[in-house]
Amino acid sequence: MDINEKIDMIGRLYLALEQIENCKAFSALIPEVRTNFVYASKESTGPEDVLAVDGRITIIDGLPKAAGKIRFAASGYMANLILEIRKHNPEIRSAIDFANSPQVTSFLKEYSQEKGWIFSEIDRSSEPESLKNPDETSASWEVGEAIRAAGGKVPILFCETGTVGKEPVTILAGKEPLEVAEQVCELAKRLEKKRLEKSGRISK
Amino acid sequence: MDINEKIDMIGRLYLALEQIENCKAFSALIPEVRTNFVYASKESTGPEDVLAVDGRITIIDGLPKAAGKIRFAASGYMANLILEIRKHNPEIRSAIDFANSPQVTSFLKEYSQEKGWIFSEIDRSSEPESLKNPDETSASWEVGEAIRAAGGKVPILFCETGTVGKEPVTILAGKEPLEVAEQVCELAKRLEKKRLEKSGRISK
Amino acid sequence: MDINEKIDMIGRLYLALEQIENCKAFSALIPEVRTNFVYASKESTGPEDVLAVDGRITIIDGLPKAAGKIRFAASGYMANLILEIRKHNPEIRSAIDFANSPQVTSFLKEYSQEKGWIFSEIDRSSEPESLKNPDETSASWEVGEAIRAAGGKVPILFCETGTVGKEPVTILAGKEPLEVAEQVCELAKRLEKKRLEKSGRISK
Amino acid sequence: MDINEKIDMIGRLYLALEQIENCKAFSALIPEVRTNFVYASKESTGPEDVLAVDGRITIIDGLPKAAGKIRFAASGYMANLILEIRKHNPEIRSAIDFANSPQVTSFLKEYSQEKGWIFSEIDRSSEPESLKNPDETSASWEVGEAIRAAGGKVPILFCETGTVGKEPVTILAGKEPLEVAEQVCELAKRLEKKRLEKSGRISK
Repeated sequence: MDINEKIDMIGRLYLALEQIENCKAFSALIPEVRTNFVYASKESTGPEDVLAVDGRITIIDGLPKAAGKIRFAASGYMANLILEIRKHNPEIRSAIDFANSPQVTSFLKEYSQEKGWIFSEIDRSSEPESLKNPDETSASWEVGEAIRAAGGKVPILFCETGTVGKEPVTILAGKEPLEVAEQVCELAKRLEKKRLEKSGRISK
Repeated sequence: MDINEKIDMIGRLYLALEQIENCKAFSALIPEVRTNFVYASKESTGPEDVLAVDGRITIIDGLPKAAGKIRFAASGYMANLILEIRKHNPEIRSAIDFANSPQVTSFLKEYSQEKGWIFSEIDRSSEPESLKNPDETSASWEVGEAIRAAGGKVPILFCETGTVGKEPVTILAGKEPLEVAEQVCELAKRLEKKRLEKSGRISK
Repeated sequence: MDINEKIDMIGRLYLALEQIENCKAFSALIPEVRTNFVYASKESTGPEDVLAVDGRITIIDGLPKAAGKIRFAASGYMANLILEIRKHNPEIRSAIDFANSPQVTSFLKEYSQEKGWIFSEIDRSSEPESLKNPDETSASWEVGEAIRAAGGKVPILFCETGTVGKEPVTILAGKEPLEVAEQVCELAKRLEKKRLEKSGRISK
Repeated sequence: MDINEKIDMIGRLYLALEQIENCKAFSALIPEVRTNFVYASKESTGPEDVLAVDGRITIIDGLPKAAGKIRFAASGYMANLILEIRKHNPEIRSAIDFANSPQVTSFLKEYSQEKGWIFSEIDRSSEPESLKNPDETSASWEVGEAIRAAGGKVPILFCETGTVGKEPVTILAGKEPLEVAEQVCELAKRLEKKRLEKSGRISK
């Protein structure tokens, strides 16, 4: 990879991670499997071309926190997912995953409409058993399903339902990490506000 | 809590974590939801009396690594699990969780027999929907099931099958963290050896 | 070393470090060479028997922060210093170093009097050139000087003047780390208060 | 500051730090005051425009290791030094400091000649007492001296002698961090080889 592209990729993911780590509301969206945040190079063909967070993003002292450093090849599942998405839309090279639940899905449907985002839901229980591993085939099936469910368009945001042994997660994708971080933090704050309103702790 | 008990608990969990971090074979057993390692105080009644790893144990550069520091109240699910186990056997105050799969379960059945450990399997898909949350009720059901499946005895080692949205994990419990760390590292090395033999990479 | 002593030593230094990391006022006392915090075992004879902070204690985001983990043999100079002190008073097994300046020295003289502590000052420029290295001989000379300057008693607190190429530091010693941490944090807060009073930012 | 410049600066310093952390030979050159590595923006006027390592670079487990993250305003002394150097040569925007000793100075004189680098030595004991603080005035005097000692040219490499209470350090400067990291690692490896040859542990 070109050194200038590498510098640019690291600078962007580093600053984007800082945004995530400073967004307290996002900690409520970190799933049990923890979050990863990936960024694929322009000519990426495999996970070794995808920058990610080593050890994923966890919760320390109540705040989102990268467990390790950012490095190429630090992700499997999320790397394969962004590589698949990029096949359908080469402009989309970054993605983050976060928690899902019926409540989150219903909020995201509305939120996507407001934002004009292409949104879809996929049902992992309908994934053919034969594809469930390795990560690569699974990612290919998932992205295909997400596009099919969005009527042929590549969605920016999609929710997976969980299946046996798999926690349901949501994926938000975008052109590059700074955009993804800004959007996911805004979304996390809106969802937090909605939850507080519902619980009566703040007035609408 | 008495300051001397606190000192003793931290010293033990700190040294036990060092063992885990130096056990490369254990990284193959860290589940997607990551591992936690808990230690309940003698008079523990809630998660605030249970020492755990903030941010859980993840994989960095291929090795197990505590994401944050050890502190009281850093765990929910695993804390409730050890509190429940302690109700049935007050001597058992420490536990660690790790990955499960049909292959791991079959290895552990044999391994427990060899060690003379009480082993059981529980099927989380039979957990009543009404109990699935919060963590506390779920832990109570799980431990009850594990004891029932072991013919009324408190098992040292038990495997959960996964259910929709939940990754299957294994729990190893013991009197204190140094004992648990030693046993789980020995177990991880044995399983690694078995896998290598099976794959033909080393001769028996 | 006995495993129970090891557990006790780690538990104490871990909790003492937590106190230091939570003491914002102490960050103003971290010298350019950074702080170390040591704890020698009962039968200690060399640095390998002295627990210390790997990479020393530095300042991150304005707060004291251990750069690495606590481990045996992680200190040279401070380890030799506590080993020398212990030869004169076997009860004193822990010590921390921090910044010095004429202002700090004058505050500490008064503070020691109030506390009833044995205090002394040593002039490193009078250290024979031949002893200046290795650490061990230097530590032996320094502790000898500190005792001589205190009229034959082992001081709890002593200030070194700097010499060519050496930053002046202060040493506070005690029986075990929790006592040392409590005293050094109290001292740091008092000194901070005094500075604020002097600068007119708070009224006496 | 322009976001693109920020991304570029962070990407470069991040990758340069990785080089330093992987250079075992450099750990022998980390001074007692620890190392900092700075990078000033194109229009920098104060330390808030200088990217540096929060908590400096220390030694953990025998290897160089950044104690905290890279962030703007994380350095005082080294930030002021690069800001002063930049006044004389706007192309030089990055610098690192490391240990000095008569042996190191003599090696560096020879090494600079081989490399065609402008080298100078400054004697901090001749610094006027009135300038010694704050950092800014001190940096201005030091850089002036270094240029004077180099016959009016801006040196890439300069050694300070220590003075009372100040450890002697060496400064290596360059256009940007990747160049500085590469040069300082090469230099550290050459010095290590020379020391091993001298001690007879490896043959020339």
